[in-house]
Amino acid sequence: MFEYELIKKDGNARLGKLHTPHGVIDTPVFMPVGTQATVKSMTPDELKSIGAQIILGNTYHLYLRPGHELIREMGGLHSFMNWDGAILTDSGGFQIFSLAKLRDIKEEGVTFHSHIDGSAHFISPEKAIEIENALGSDIMMCFDECAPYPCDYDYAKKSMELTMRWARRCKDAHNNTEKQALFGIVQGSVYKDLREDSVKKLLDIDFPGYAIGGLSVGEPSEMMYEMLDFTVPLLPENKPRYNMGVGSPDYLIESVYRGIDMCDCVLPTRIARNGTAMVSTGKIVVRNAEYAYDTRPLDLECDCYTCKNYTRAYIRHLVKAGEILGARLISLHNLYFLINLMKNIRESIKEERFLQFREEFYKKWKK
Amino acid sequence: MFEYELIKKDGNARLGKLHTPHGVIDTPVFMPVGTQATVKSMTPDELKSIGAQIILGNTYHLYLRPGHELIREMGGLHSFMNWDGAILTDSGGFQIFSLAKLRDIKEEGVTFHSHIDGSAHFISPEKAIEIENALGSDIMMCFDECAPYPCDYDYAKKSMELTMRWARRCKDAHNNTEKQALFGIVQGSVYKDLREDSVKKLLDIDFPGYAIGGLSVGEPSEMMYEMLDFTVPLLPENKPRYNMGVGSPDYLIESVYRGIDMCDCVLPTRIARNGTAMVSTGKIVVRNAEYAYDTRPLDLECDCYTCKNYTRAYIRHLVKAGEILGARLISLHNLYFLINLMKNIRESIKEERFLQFREEFYKKWKK
Repeated sequence: MFEYELIKKDGNARLGKLHTPHGVIDTPVFMPVGTQATVKSMTPDELKSIGAQIILGNTYHLYLRPGHELIREMGGLHSFMNWDGAILTDSGGFQIFSLAKLRDIKEEGVTFHSHIDGSAHFISPEKAIEIENALGSDIMMCFDECAPYPCDYDYAKKSMELTMRWARRCKDAHNNTEKQALFGIVQGSVYKDLREDSVKKLLDIDFPGYAIGGLSVGEPSEMMYEMLDFTVPLLPENKPRYNMGVGSPDYLIESVYRGIDMCDCVLPTRIARNGTAMVSTGKIVVRNAEYAYDTRPLDLECDCYTCKNYTRAYIRHLVKAGEILGARLISLHNLYFLINLMKNIRESIKEERFLQFREEFYKKWKK
Repeated sequence: MFEYELIKKDGNARLGKLHTPHGVIDTPVFMPVGTQATVKSMTPDELKSIGAQIILGNTYHLYLRPGHELIREMGGLHSFMNWDGAILTDSGGFQIFSLAKLRDIKEEGVTFHSHIDGSAHFISPEKAIEIENALGSDIMMCFDECAPYPCDYDYAKKSMELTMRWARRCKDAHNNTEKQALFGIVQGSVYKDLREDSVKKLLDIDFPGYAIGGLSVGEPSEMMYEMLDFTVPLLPENKPRYNMGVGSPDYLIESVYRGIDMCDCVLPTRIARNGTAMVSTGKIVVRNAEYAYDTRPLDLECDCYTCKNYTRAYIRHLVKAGEILGARLISLHNLYFLINLMKNIRESIKEERFLQFREEFYKKWKK
């Protein structure tokens, strides 16, 4: 039920298809994040309408609220949130290390306190798999520690090695392999030998897909690119590669350029709620006074529902007045922008002009 | 361009059509409120999809933010918010007396301070008309003082008489009569002789429609019904009658029963944001624990998008997690519920079984 099909390469950029129990995903793909069983402010129908084929769910959040047992009883996450496309769930690790309180990491797993009510919880690799099995996602992620940046070599090594032992335990604990594919996560911070060692260990365990974790956590972009340059070629050609937590247009393009097939990030919906739109020339802080009388759409080149129907002046008013519709309209645009960017990237790979596409993108786009 | 067409009566209940420059409105009608140039959480397309033909805009809010001059420059409120159906604007009076600070009422008009930034403003009947002309609504309301409840006779009399003098000034100041119909507002609190006197004064000025103001402001429902029973028969048959600020299902039914054609209220969207749904049996406080595992739709009898696609369990989760989609789904349902209620009421009047409809409604519905 799960297979990666490599269709074409253009340099290192890959055009492919990911076959899942909930449909075929065209790669490279940007995956909107639905943290709490909803991509913030959007309906599943709207996600479909902008071309989303796969979305994320956050295991940490769903475990705490409403609880994975409840979601299992509701028929799984697809049924619970009325989304019949594919779903990828993270393992909860990232949020345990970024959101939760009073963490205590041991070989067995992690004890932490909920950021919602302070209640104590313990998650092991086995528990993470149990939760992800209950959620019923098409792609599950191994339980890992995402080391912070900066991170000294010794900590990075210890953390990566623990994560690799956890990866084996995750694979051993996962039985529902027909319907749910479990991905391994490469760690090792910014240290090449650790990254190499991590890849070796994961390949030894053998997963249907590999993610690169611990990037886009505050390091300079050149550092991220260097790590991708080094790590991606170590991964097998016939498996999908996923760069976790990456969502700015330049990061997407640079990831694809280095052979990445999948990316996700909360960025498009998070900045939307603050009134910032991603556009072909960079970004627009709609809240700014300069847009008060601006009758143009957010992005002059965009065909999304927001850009076809609303002016910057109106959206600015909504944002300033704290209206939900402002967050909705910009979220829809930003997600469309990234999904459409990936669509254009796929076209360019197909037509063997990805490098040209990349060059033309940067001509217009300012960080 | 503006005309009320009385099609049929069933008792005092009236089936009619209101012809406006932005389409024909089937009456009796419930009008969703779009306070700040947006019906909270909804797109205009969604409003269309649930059958909304006319929405409200709040003059006080739009005058303060983004400003009526800006909206005029954007081509008026219809164009600004991308709504091509009809719009009714209130005069700002109600909010000046309920939201603004440091009000000072004089014969000439009202000085007040903005609830947003404390800035001082002066609105006279002429200014209110100027603002409503800039907004370009299909139906404008006269500038009035909505007396509070309870209110002693002397204050109610003084206030009503001032409002009647303001009504004449509003009519004198309004020139765009081809495109915008100006309604008079009956005041007089709970005093029949004042209500009667108010109606006489308004009929003397002559308006294309009449609203009953100063009800649903805290008085017992029997008192409101008594005032409607007394006041509505004084109004001309060939003009639409509007009961302001009324939005609970029983109030809608009782208003129609007494010959009212139009109602509006923020209730359906406001309670939606708190997680309360209006349903055929009364209401559902979705947040409550009893719905945690409830796989039924909000309303078992409802055909709206929300009820066709989402469970109470999921919506409860969204509400508890503070997700925008929760407010969206319940807002859409609640507005659909009231718009559909009015549609069913119209059907029943057409088929001369309104009394039966009313009776059957109350059999199921609990306050």
